[in-house]
Order: sequence, then C-alpha cells, then structure tokens
Amino acid sequence: MPSLSEKGILIPPSPIRKLVPFSEEAKRKGKKVYHLNIGQPDISTPAIALDALRNLDLRVIEYGHSAGNESYRQKLAEYYKKAGINIDHTQMLITTGASEAILFAFFACINPGEEIITPEPFYANYSGFAVTAGITITSVTSTIENDFALPPVSEIERKISPKTKGILLCNPNNPTGYLYSEKELQMIRDIVSRHDLFLFSDEAYREFCYDGMKHISAMNLDGIGDNVVLIDSISKRYSMCGVRIGALISRNSEVISSALKFAQSRLSPPGLGQIAGEASIDTPDEYFLEVNREYTMRRDFMVNALNKIPGVYCPKPMGAFYTVVKLPVDDSEKFAQWILEEFDYKNQTVMIAPASGFYSTPGLGWNEARIAYVLNVEDLKNAVETLEQALKIYPGRTIQ
Amino acid sequence: MPSLSEKGILIPPSPIRKLVPFSEEAKRKGKKVYHLNIGQPDISTPAIALDALRNLDLRVIEYGHSAGNESYRQKLAEYYKKAGINIDHTQMLITTGASEAILFAFFACINPGEEIITPEPFYANYSGFAVTAGITITSVTSTIENDFALPPVSEIERKISPKTKGILLCNPNNPTGYLYSEKELQMIRDIVSRHDLFLFSDEAYREFCYDGMKHISAMNLDGIGDNVVLIDSISKRYSMCGVRIGALISRNSEVISSALKFAQSRLSPPGLGQIAGEASIDTPDEYFLEVNREYTMRRDFMVNALNKIPGVYCPKPMGAFYTVVKLPVDDSEKFAQWILEEFDYKNQTVMIAPASGFYSTPGLGWNEARIAYVLNVEDLKNAVETLEQALKIYPGRTIQ
Repeated sequence: MPSLSEKGILIPPSPIRKLVPFSEEAKRKGKKVYHLNIGQPDISTPAIALDALRNLDLRVIEYGHSAGNESYRQKLAEYYKKAGINIDHTQMLITTGASEAILFAFFACINPGEEIITPEPFYANYSGFAVTAGITITSVTSTIENDFALPPVSEIERKISPKTKGILLCNPNNPTGYLYSEKELQMIRDIVSRHDLFLFSDEAYREFCYDGMKHISAMNLDGIGDNVVLIDSISKRYSMCGVRIGALISRNSEVISSALKFAQSRLSPPGLGQIAGEASIDTPDEYFLEVNREYTMRRDFMVNALNKIPGVYCPKPMGAFYTVVKLPVDDSEKFAQWILEEFDYKNQTVMIAPASGFYSTPGLGWNEARIAYVLNVEDLKNAVETLEQALKIYPGRTIQ
Repeated sequence: MPSLSEKGILIPPSPIRKLVPFSEEAKRKGKKVYHLNIGQPDISTPAIALDALRNLDLRVIEYGHSAGNESYRQKLAEYYKKAGINIDHTQMLITTGASEAILFAFFACINPGEEIITPEPFYANYSGFAVTAGITITSVTSTIENDFALPPVSEIERKISPKTKGILLCNPNNPTGYLYSEKELQMIRDIVSRHDLFLFSDEAYREFCYDGMKHISAMNLDGIGDNVVLIDSISKRYSMCGVRIGALISRNSEVISSALKFAQSRLSPPGLGQIAGEASIDTPDEYFLEVNREYTMRRDFMVNALNKIPGVYCPKPMGAFYTVVKLPVDDSEKFAQWILEEFDYKNQTVMIAPASGFYSTPGLGWNEARIAYVLNVEDLKNAVETLEQALKIYPGRTIQ
C-alpha cells in the first residue's frame, strides 16, 4: 500500500483521547463517570432554536451562500452590535464551527513554514490546525503561579522571528478560564502594531465572564483594524456545539476575500445549523443571565472545593468554564488513567484532562489538569469528592 | 497590514463566480435567469428526512463522535451493503460534505509537493482543495470528440512521476456526466496496482445512472482494497446539498486512523445534517425510481434539444446530471457573460458554466460549457430555446 502523509503523524496525540478507552471500560464495569474532561455543557439549547427546526418550512435543503446565508449574517451583525462590536454582514464568513474559521484564517493569512505565537497552555486542537496548514505554533508560557496571566511583553517579543506572522489569543481562555484585562490586551495591541502581525482572537467564550467582569474584544482595540481576525462560534453561547456553526470576522477586506476562496471550495456552511443559529439571536436576555448565574455558582463551588483538597491549587478563573488546577501527583496523565482504571468511590469516578496536552513545551503541565465545570453542582460535588478520595490513596501522590 | 498567504492567490478564479454579478444584474433588470450553471437539484428532499427534523427530540444539540454518530454510520453501512459495497461502520468517517472528505483524504495521504493525476475536465473545486493541501493536480485530457471517455493507459502512465501519490476519479463524472465502464475501471485498477497509488474515487452521483447502466464502485475493484479511498456525499442522493454531509470510506485502516486525527481537530461533523442523513436511509425505493425517471427525461430532452441547435454538439451522458457541450462561439466565457448582460429572449436568459474552469491545461474548453439539467423540462425547454436564439445573434458566433 502507498505510504501515508507525514501530517497525520505530526498531529500531536491527545492525552484526553488516550483516556477514552479507560473511560469506556470504567462504564462497562458499571462505574458512574463524571466527565470533567470536555467542554460539552449540559445547559439546554434555547427553545427558540429548537422550535425553528421543528417548524422547518422547506421543500429542499439547498446549498447556501459560501459566506453563509445573508439573512443570518445580517442578523449576526445585530448580535455583534449589541455585544459592542460594530461590523456589518460583509465583514464576516459563516464557518463550520470555530474550527473551520481558524483553518481558513491560517490558510488565508499564513504561508506554510511561517509561525504564530500563542500563550501556553493553549487549546490542543490549535496544534492540529497548525499541522494541517503547515505552520508552526511558538508558545510563550503562562504559569499557574501567576494564575495564567499574559506573559510579559519582553517574553513575547523574544519569540518573534522573521517568520512570525501573527499572535493567536483565546479570550476568555480555553483551557485556563483566564480573562485578559484591558491592560494586557493593550500590550498585545502594541506588539501587533509594532511588528505588523495578525491578531487571531478566538472569542468563543465571550458570554462566559463572571463577577461583573467585562470581555474586551480584539475587534475594539484601536488602530489595528486590518490586523485583527476574530474567530467565533455559537457552540457555547447557545449550548449547541453539535450544529457546527462559527464565524470568521475581519475589517480587513482582503482577509475576507482570501478566506472566501477557501469557503467557496467547500460550497457552503451547514444549512440547518444556520437556521438554528439565526433563530438563536432572538434568545431572550434572561437565558444568558440564568446561564451566567448557573456557571458562576458552579465555578464558585468548584474552585472552593478544589482548593480545600490538600495539595491542590486552583486559580479563580473569570471566564469560560474551565480551570487548570495543580494536583499533588507524580504525573497527571498517569493519575487520570489510574482514577478511571483502578479507582472508584461509591462506584463513581471522574475523567479529567491532563494538562500536558495543552502545552507545547515538553515537560510542562505534568502535575496539572484541566477541569470543565459543565455539570450541575450536585454532580460536581460528587466528582470533587471522588477526586479528593482518589488523591488520598493514589500511589503516585506527592503529599501524604 | 501584514501580507496574506500565497494560497488564496493560487486558488484559480472560477469563471462561474465571475458571472455571478452579471446574473444578479440581469435579475435586477427583471430578466428571468435559468440556472444551468450549478448542480442544485430542484427535486424535493425526502419527506422522511424533513420529518426527522420536525420531530426533533433533543434538549441539547451536543457534539457528536468525531467519526460521525455511530448510529448513522451503522445505518450507512446498510445503505452501502444494499448498493453492493461491503464495509462496516469502522471503515468510514462522516464528513462535512464530500468537500471535507476530499480534504481529509489529501491531508492524510499526500504530502505537500506531491501529485495526483485526474482526467480533465474535472470538478473545479478539486483545484482549491489541492492548493489548500499544497499538492499538485496533474491532468490527463479527456475529449468531447471521444465523449469524455477515459484517456488511454499510456497517456495516464506518461504523467506518473516519482511524486505521484494517487489517481482521483469522479464517477459518474462532474462535469461531463461520463459513467466509467468496467473495462476503464479495470484499466485504472491495473495502473493503481502497478504503481502502488491511492485511488480517490468521488462517487457522489452513484444513484444517477441512466438507461439501465450500472455504476461500479472503486470499492469493488479487486486487489486494491488498501489503495482505495471512497469520497461520498448525500447532497445529490437525497437532494439535500445544504446539510453538508459526506463520508470518507476506506478498507485501509491506516487511512481511516490518519484521517480521524484531522476529524478530531474539528471535533464533529454537523449534527443536524447527520439526523437528516440517518433518517434518509429509509427513503423508499420509489423515490429513487421517480428521480431517475425524471432525470432521464430531462437528459433526453436536453441532449436532443441541444444537438438540434446548429453547431452545438452534446454527448449523451450516462450519469450525474451534467453535460459538457461544444458551442459555436469564439469563447464560451465571453458568450456566458454576453447572454446574461446583453441578451434576452422573451425577457428570459440563461446562466451556463464556461468549461475552461474545468480544465487545468490552459487553452482547453474555450468553446465548451457545462450544462446542469437540474430544472424541470418546461424550464429546460425555455432555457434551450433562449440559448438557441442567443446563438443566432451572438456577435462572436462561429457559424452563420
């Protein structure tokens, strides 16, 4: 048989995926597994979106516009206006999830062999997209000791080479839940402006900010309008991850024109998801208030409960629904496997995401894990209790 | 602003897309435009699929499996069995249209800088996918004089270089409607086997074969099981182009494993489209018989009517719903624009796809156009009449 390409080999293996067989085996053995490892919220999709599908008035599910249905883009421009981002429907492409928006941004803006810089830990799939596009991600390390704040400007600028084409920022951050401050974003703005880089800003968690903190969009940073490419998704906003609808947004018309060519190759984004997405824009404000209240409660519970476990440190994230915690273990990958394979507490166990998969620098994150607080407080309570009991007897624990 | 990547520039401009503004302008002027330029069928989506959406019983539209919902893949294996293709659900990935299946196939199997060979004229978006993947398409010319049959083996083998990684075949063919014979497929099989190449077989039009002709899947060619990658789509089969659901299928488990990594990066294929797709598999056989009868009628009408126009030659295609015709014009791109911009017959005009966009060899297809017979016979009648009248007075006509 002919040999495969090297790209598949180059995509880093994900520690989470390696755990899946152990999670399945645990379930087969009758254990209840609490999934703290994935960002699949249990929040209901807005009724208005489901109703739009149930009232579907179509005879043929046709191709749509390659940039996305115009009616949806028009409506989406209203959503952004309300979110304080002034753009019109010609400055956006509807994509198949934020995933495709990132890929189109890379394909349109970066040549194979060129680089982007992003703070680590970072969303692991960025690595897959980088391999797909033939580009390199250079990371600059943010640390749990500093609650995953932006590393200093000098650190970032030290990583800039002649091949550097842009900075990629996920705000609020997946995996850390860190919400970048205005001051930090101004620092990024200055770097982008000084070195004429693209700023790819993944803002899929825009709505998930807590304690009254405000999200600042990269689209509202002064003087870099042609540099900013906003990556967005409606997966988390409306708890409809399965529709696979995102967007690529830029005031730089050349970026839009170039990305549109890749969009035209694949004809159009998912039509049914666009119908659900368009309807969702009329979701009442109370939905978001309720979701925010719920996640604030979950976060508060989770951060407090985790910090009460001896040897565990959990920063208090202000955004998204993740937190990266430090665990008193020899190796969080081994621990994550052990707790699924060997452990149960009242016939329950938990699945966590070893943080090593979110770092590109080898050796980092070995005693950290990402925890998604996407379950109700009752389940989180059981999950944390299980985690606590496990840490008491895990053979590789680093405190007694 | 930072410079864009070269990839966007490299994607060939499509003559069809260049015509869109002229088509829109014609409509603004009140002309009725018959779209013979795109493969958007007017056939109804099966009721069973639309009903599945209308009866949606979901609280949250969640992420699915990266390879596609298992229930859908299980059911799809039954569809393939019925179509004479024996595969199971582990040998397939559900993709976002055939588009994504092609991209995943390229990413998984071909390194940047390597080549594939395909007969021209070919589906224009293959060029976009090739640029995206950084690979080269080498074409071997099939001719209208030969009704677009497979070029001789010697011609194909002459194009094989050390960089050649595979052959890409679209069967039934878009744009020509050509249905490859068993003998031709055996020729392809032998080449693939002799040179140990991949065979990427795009069979999106499998159901569209006429006059009792049988479609032979590349999956059923002997002795090259590890070489064949089947590209599929439900867009045309169930007239639901907008759902964006396709599949990548192979008995080569390494191809599936490698492609799955790219699939995992983008999390999951469209969830709502999969629901529609799964329901569609129970579409009654009468639906396909009716569709086949309808398209046979349309094809027969179209081929006869076109061949009656002085100077026009239209082969009789046995598959898909396209035909590439020779027109008595100086330049089919100019003609296609002129007929939209300057011409009308009883306030009607037509949009056709200049064939130059389907050839990669410069200078070919200049007097050819692809015509999609996706409208009802009444509309096709008006469209052909309009075309006939236009050819009588087009200033660049080559016969008087």
